Amino acid sequence: MNYRMLSYITGRVILISAALMSLPLTVAVIYRETAPLLSFLGTMAIMAAFGVPLAFLVKVKRKTFFAKEGLVCVSLAWTLLSLFGALPLVFSGAVGNYVDAFFEIVSGYTTTGATILTEIETLPKSILFWRSFTHWIGGMGVLVFMLAIVQKTDMGMMHILKAEAPGPKVGKLVSKTASSARILYGIYLALTVVMTILLICGGMPVFDSIVNSFATAGTGGFGILSDSIAGYNNVFCEMVIAVFMFLFGVNFNMYYFVIIGEFRRVMKSDELKWYFAIVAGATVAVSLNIMSVYGDPGSSFRYGFFQVSSIISTTGFSTANFDLWPSFSKVVLVLLMFIGSCAGSTGGGIKVARIVIIFKSVRNAVRKMVYPRSVSTVKLDGEIIDDRTVRAVGTYLCAYVIIMCASTLVVALDKYDGVTSFTSVMACLNNIGPALGAAGPAENFSGFGIVSKLVLILDMLLGRLEIYPVLTLLSVSAWKKN
Amino acid sequence: MNYRMLSYITGRVILISAALMSLPLTVAVIYRETAPLLSFLGTMAIMAAFGVPLAFLVKVKRKTFFAKEGLVCVSLAWTLLSLFGALPLVFSGAVGNYVDAFFEIVSGYTTTGATILTEIETLPKSILFWRSFTHWIGGMGVLVFMLAIVQKTDMGMMHILKAEAPGPKVGKLVSKTASSARILYGIYLALTVVMTILLICGGMPVFDSIVNSFATAGTGGFGILSDSIAGYNNVFCEMVIAVFMFLFGVNFNMYYFVIIGEFRRVMKSDELKWYFAIVAGATVAVSLNIMSVYGDPGSSFRYGFFQVSSIISTTGFSTANFDLWPSFSKVVLVLLMFIGSCAGSTGGGIKVARIVIIFKSVRNAVRKMVYPRSVSTVKLDGEIIDDRTVRAVGTYLCAYVIIMCASTLVVALDKYDGVTSFTSVMACLNNIGPALGAAGPAENFSGFGIVSKLVLILDMLLGRLEIYPVLTLLSVSAWKKN
Repeated sequence: MNYRMLSYITGRVILISAALMSLPLTVAVIYRETAPLLSFLGTMAIMAAFGVPLAFLVKVKRKTFFAKEGLVCVSLAWTLLSLFGALPLVFSGAVGNYVDAFFEIVSGYTTTGATILTEIETLPKSILFWRSFTHWIGGMGVLVFMLAIVQKTDMGMMHILKAEAPGPKVGKLVSKTASSARILYGIYLALTVVMTILLICGGMPVFDSIVNSFATAGTGGFGILSDSIAGYNNVFCEMVIAVFMFLFGVNFNMYYFVIIGEFRRVMKSDELKWYFAIVAGATVAVSLNIMSVYGDPGSSFRYGFFQVSSIISTTGFSTANFDLWPSFSKVVLVLLMFIGSCAGSTGGGIKVARIVIIFKSVRNAVRKMVYPRSVSTVKLDGEIIDDRTVRAVGTYLCAYVIIMCASTLVVALDKYDGVTSFTSVMACLNNIGPALGAAGPAENFSGFGIVSKLVLILDMLLGRLEIYPVLTLLSVSAWKKN
Repeated sequence: MNYRMLSYITGRVILISAALMSLPLTVAVIYRETAPLLSFLGTMAIMAAFGVPLAFLVKVKRKTFFAKEGLVCVSLAWTLLSLFGALPLVFSGAVGNYVDAFFEIVSGYTTTGATILTEIETLPKSILFWRSFTHWIGGMGVLVFMLAIVQKTDMGMMHILKAEAPGPKVGKLVSKTASSARILYGIYLALTVVMTILLICGGMPVFDSIVNSFATAGTGGFGILSDSIAGYNNVFCEMVIAVFMFLFGVNFNMYYFVIIGEFRRVMKSDELKWYFAIVAGATVAVSLNIMSVYGDPGSSFRYGFFQVSSIISTTGFSTANFDLWPSFSKVVLVLLMFIGSCAGSTGGGIKVARIVIIFKSVRNAVRKMVYPRSVSTVKLDGEIIDDRTVRAVGTYLCAYVIIMCASTLVVALDKYDGVTSFTSVMACLNNIGPALGAAGPAENFSGFGIVSKLVLILDMLLGRLEIYPVLTLLSVSAWKKN
């Protein structure tokens, strides 16, 4: 383990996120919120006290990073950020205990959006701003962000990127250095700004527009009203959010291709086609199914499309209490939870690309039964996916299922029913937010016991970092000397 | 497609199962049940009318079978057997409509044990005997049974066996010809007889002992009382059944090894160790958890062990309404549904061997992250499992999950809640029987609509034949000329 490098990078990450805290600090100044203001200042001081020695007092000897070091570094950074990020919530008195605050901020950084807050509206604006801002920071990944600034390592960064960039295939765009990270951030920022402007034009208050855009861009889903987006009762803004949730679930490389005029590569993307098809199919199915609840097709589409887009992009906003929908729609939503967004987007879940590979390899297996001598290869975007990748996708799904089952077992020991236990794990592991039952869109996660909360925190991190980095962090052998 | 050979084999299967119907016919004679007696005679006549031309009028030219022909043959045989086997239920007036009767007999032959019957006790004994007897026939596989009798094909039979013998690894024992099938059947018969005697000694009526032994041996689980085994309220018999359910969930090769004195091979079996460990762990966990329901440890163990053994072996008997248990226990039972019994047993589910391979390959994937240059092989019983098999297991799990999701979607369109829809699919796909909710142990499957019933029938067949044969039967291209 390259402890010096690890120390340098985590130190840097802490300092950068301390610097980012100046934004909620500014909000506290604007709205004259004394307690939060002092809380942010105190937290920033503590972070500096940890970050400065880690980043500057340790002399980095070896600048390269092995894979496992990259994995450990990523999970460590996310954990540390959340540990520090939770402090303002406790200091300001917004959240009563540290575990709840930690849950909330892990939920923020992992862009999950599951909340333990019961009375959101009464909280100071700067605190609300901070939790939604963690979505925005977490969305594109603290460490892809890092890449644009820290350039100390050469090869090493690739390992971090590999752990960070979601999905089975790290595109060529992402695999370039700082410049491509800057392009991605440019797109990310531009989309966020456009969305904010549209929301303001639609009549949403400026503060709400900014905060909701953060939560949408990161596909996080923290609402600042206790009934999420439903509270605005504004069809235009709902549609803007629904469309942008969908857009932030698309592989960002696609936007890059659009910018440089390579439309052919966008059209060739299997993942994008499937993503479109799934969203369209699910919207039609759910809208037809909830006609029995809402009566007219217009309202059904309004609530159906919003919720489908919200769940598949793993945002988790809601405009309706879908826990009260017919069971078919609930099953569709749970399946969308599994699938998740596209690889290389800000969303979570298994990712559409993996689902496509799984489907195609099952189809091949059947074909192989019928024609034993047929050559069966899995193609994605017209390119052959090698056997190793296909197998890795299968193993990933297996690891995912094991974690899902183990977590559900532990959470089921809590006081809730099976549906609540299972869907809470799903909602956290796939970084969505609201579940069904007692953790449904009209409820929150505050009722869970401390063990369940810790398991769900672990699930959020596992889901966000795509399992392996966190398992590496937890594996004893990874910490042994090289 | 070798239609002549297909005709010959399906014809034979029909004739043999018609001959087997003489047993329930005898029961009808003993108990002087006129309507069932005539129904069985009528069905046997119809089966002969179909079977004789198929088996004897077609001249078999090519005696070899391609893989796909074997797969098609197996699924076709199971479907035809169930189609004919359902007739006595309709003819005798025991079941009101043909789809329900078909559901019941598919549930019998696939050793599922899910029932649409609402008033079991009022039915004629010969009909009860027949449905439980289909479990016993189905248990070891109609076509492994075939193997002992039909020896027309040479290589071809291997393909049928491959489709028939459950689990990822066809042992050397099974891969031998008719003689090994006879050994397996000898063990099967002997265990059934021992169990029947023990039940009679325990005070269970002779008829009930025989019928319940059939249902246990096939890991089917049709009860002849509406509250299943609970109705006897006999602790000794409950424990006999619990132990035998466990035993019938073990790979039959193990018994063969015991008989020939090769204890070392039994001790070396990873699958057996895991199976033991899972049953022991689940029994302890569930028993502790249901202490809150039953109060004393004795009763909790009694109900806990019985249910764990019943679910993991995919039998589906019940001595308690586990739908009323705490959610932790229910989650454990649902997980046991997934896992299922050992490969090469009469049980269903994903099979313990596959679960072991999945666990080990996930562990390897994590190890590979930590040590990229490590050689990672998956071992089972001390032998290396080649990459192809590991990948096949992953693909199988994926196919399984896809079928599970698709089926749940369709069944959720029915009038029941999500838990009922999902667990009904699980209970059928894994050939267990009772589910949770409205299809729980105290309920039955009669309330489902016709579409749900057809989907669940398909799931039972898919589960029993391990997916691929049925998919091959349904794939258009398999029917094209070679």
